[in-house]
Amino acid sequence: MTDFSATRAFFDLPEGLIYLDGNSLGPLPRAVPARVQDVMRAEWGGELIRGWNSADWMGLPTRLGDRIAPLIGAEAGSVVTGDTLSIKVYQALASALELHPERRVILSDSGNFPSDLYMAEGLIRSLERDYELRVVAPEEVERAIDVSVAVLLLTEVDYRTGRKHDMARLTASAHAAGAAVVWDLAHSAGALPVDLAGVRAEFAVGCSYKYLNGGPGAPAFIYVRPDLVGRVHPALSGWLGHEAPFAFDLDYRAGAGIERMRVGTPPILQMAALEVAMDVWDMADIHDVRARSIDLSERFIAGVEARCPQVSLYSPRDPEMRGSQVGFRHPEGYAVMRALIDRGVIGDFRAPDVLRFGITPLYLRPEDIDAAVDILAEVLNDRLWDRDVDRQKARVT
Amino acid sequence: MTDFSATRAFFDLPEGLIYLDGNSLGPLPRAVPARVQDVMRAEWGGELIRGWNSADWMGLPTRLGDRIAPLIGAEAGSVVTGDTLSIKVYQALASALELHPERRVILSDSGNFPSDLYMAEGLIRSLERDYELRVVAPEEVERAIDVSVAVLLLTEVDYRTGRKHDMARLTASAHAAGAAVVWDLAHSAGALPVDLAGVRAEFAVGCSYKYLNGGPGAPAFIYVRPDLVGRVHPALSGWLGHEAPFAFDLDYRAGAGIERMRVGTPPILQMAALEVAMDVWDMADIHDVRARSIDLSERFIAGVEARCPQVSLYSPRDPEMRGSQVGFRHPEGYAVMRALIDRGVIGDFRAPDVLRFGITPLYLRPEDIDAAVDILAEVLNDRLWDRDVDRQKARVT
Repeated sequence: MTDFSATRAFFDLPEGLIYLDGNSLGPLPRAVPARVQDVMRAEWGGELIRGWNSADWMGLPTRLGDRIAPLIGAEAGSVVTGDTLSIKVYQALASALELHPERRVILSDSGNFPSDLYMAEGLIRSLERDYELRVVAPEEVERAIDVSVAVLLLTEVDYRTGRKHDMARLTASAHAAGAAVVWDLAHSAGALPVDLAGVRAEFAVGCSYKYLNGGPGAPAFIYVRPDLVGRVHPALSGWLGHEAPFAFDLDYRAGAGIERMRVGTPPILQMAALEVAMDVWDMADIHDVRARSIDLSERFIAGVEARCPQVSLYSPRDPEMRGSQVGFRHPEGYAVMRALIDRGVIGDFRAPDVLRFGITPLYLRPEDIDAAVDILAEVLNDRLWDRDVDRQKARVT
Repeated sequence: MTDFSATRAFFDLPEGLIYLDGNSLGPLPRAVPARVQDVMRAEWGGELIRGWNSADWMGLPTRLGDRIAPLIGAEAGSVVTGDTLSIKVYQALASALELHPERRVILSDSGNFPSDLYMAEGLIRSLERDYELRVVAPEEVERAIDVSVAVLLLTEVDYRTGRKHDMARLTASAHAAGAAVVWDLAHSAGALPVDLAGVRAEFAVGCSYKYLNGGPGAPAFIYVRPDLVGRVHPALSGWLGHEAPFAFDLDYRAGAGIERMRVGTPPILQMAALEVAMDVWDMADIHDVRARSIDLSERFIAGVEARCPQVSLYSPRDPEMRGSQVGFRHPEGYAVMRALIDRGVIGDFRAPDVLRFGITPLYLRPEDIDAAVDILAEVLNDRLWDRDVDRQKARVT
């Protein structure tokens, strides 16, 4: 059983703050500054160029992939880190399309994170073939899967509503129609159990700065099903995905296995931070995290609904249908969120009217949830928000 | 006049080491660890998600672009940082091809860094149109420019030989033939003056971990000529290149100006390190750096040639034809380089037989050059290398 007081102690949380935005950016693990300091001083400063070998910087992308793999049900050696999530979406989608060269539809939903759709749009535009990006409502996805679909491109958990797709069922539907799938696990990895190998998803991607606490701009990851990876021709065929990068051949030959999804020189400081952040999973079980996330979310919803009639639940009520976040709607949501933040409750706002709260059991306790409910009730019931606050949009998912 | 003792003091150099590999990875600027520590503790740790605004993490990619711009003769607001150099090559090349949709040849040379060629190959393969990557010898480039060429894709300074292309002349030739150019400035930015605006290059890209000393995996940069950027449709159309990323629209609309070349969430720790590293340019003039690079290189060549008949100069003899590195050939180059490294002279080896030395005046003094010559002469004349060392390849350009 995971000891959540130990996992909480793993993080350096500002005194007096209730942080309900770990679904955007996880907090700082206590051991990160010392480790990154050491990478800077001893490795970069002391080893200089030799660090690529002596400190095995070159192996970090796959070493980190192997740390992430168990959390998402991926086979060892099937995940590599690097780049940003948008780049990894592009890689996965370009490769997925090649599995079904005769099909022309990329099916996604309007709950997908916009950058996934933008990357698909850009890819289609470049390809200048008659591809179509078909975007349906999340609840229409299953019905929209047919034999015209080359790739089903979905984010498991909706960044805005928290609605969770049934990954096993939709993957099976896609496969029944002969389509490939790309799952974006941005709001899944580290938040809830994922079983990529079990559902036999072809590709998955995700980021590490949310529930994996890798820090601002931490690297993304990509998964390719092991039986397919040998057939994948990377569209972004960079030298570190080459079979022999240091032979400096003029022609590209894809590397063995998941290494071929590497592109350029990996960001070592970010990766060192993420490597430390992954240590929390030595003491946390993702199933325990999920169970506690549901407990805390239910507690939050019950508290808010009992005391704040001014807001309405935006996320699915059934916890099995939810990721690890809870949203409420309020017509002056932006100003309300500003008032909460001023009072030390950090969530975020999503247009037009959503107060979004991330539930992250690694460092959130029941008493934090209760305190957040108290403060939200106070703000709403005493009308403590500034009605003149500009309705600017909040930044960063 | 640049005070090179002050620029040398800017860096934290290991005692007793002569570092001739700043063309692969620049050394640690002294102020970087404290600044990155502050970003971790005060900004990530203390501000958490608010750091995107309060610490203006979101503005770092363009802020850094504006710091790099003067070094490469780019207009203010025409450079943005992010991703890796391979990704930026892809972006530039895909956009450059669109300027001449009726042409089918990408012209490059065999001295280009292989990843640039690999990315071009991958792009061509994805596009499935009848594009051709035409790779000629560096000295054949000018003759090979004709009206079939859509894009001339070159690295100004050859990573292996140090041979420097005449950027003004080749850009003018390309333009005369109606072709666009993409210059890779990996071995130019921070090494020698570049005049992108003067030569009217359409695109340029580069990295910041070599002569800009941003650290291992520091971000890349991309330049788009200001009169063209409004017409560029980014192939890698990520959300942070969107006109309004935080509107979370389902459709992509390219952002204003160079911002459209952004893709995903920027790596803040790496960028913070690079931002500090750029401060050295407040006290260094790139023309002075170039003049001193030539002095030091000439001194090195003269010293080696006088004392080491066993090696032959691999780089161009004319300093105007050279970047900021010097190569010598030796049949047992790998073992010789290992012996040098064991004796505190860090250069690198490039197959099959090249000893490569980066000349970086920001922190190298004439006496360092002389000491390196002494040690190389001792190793070669006393045959101090281990003849049994495996002929492995050295890592990382």
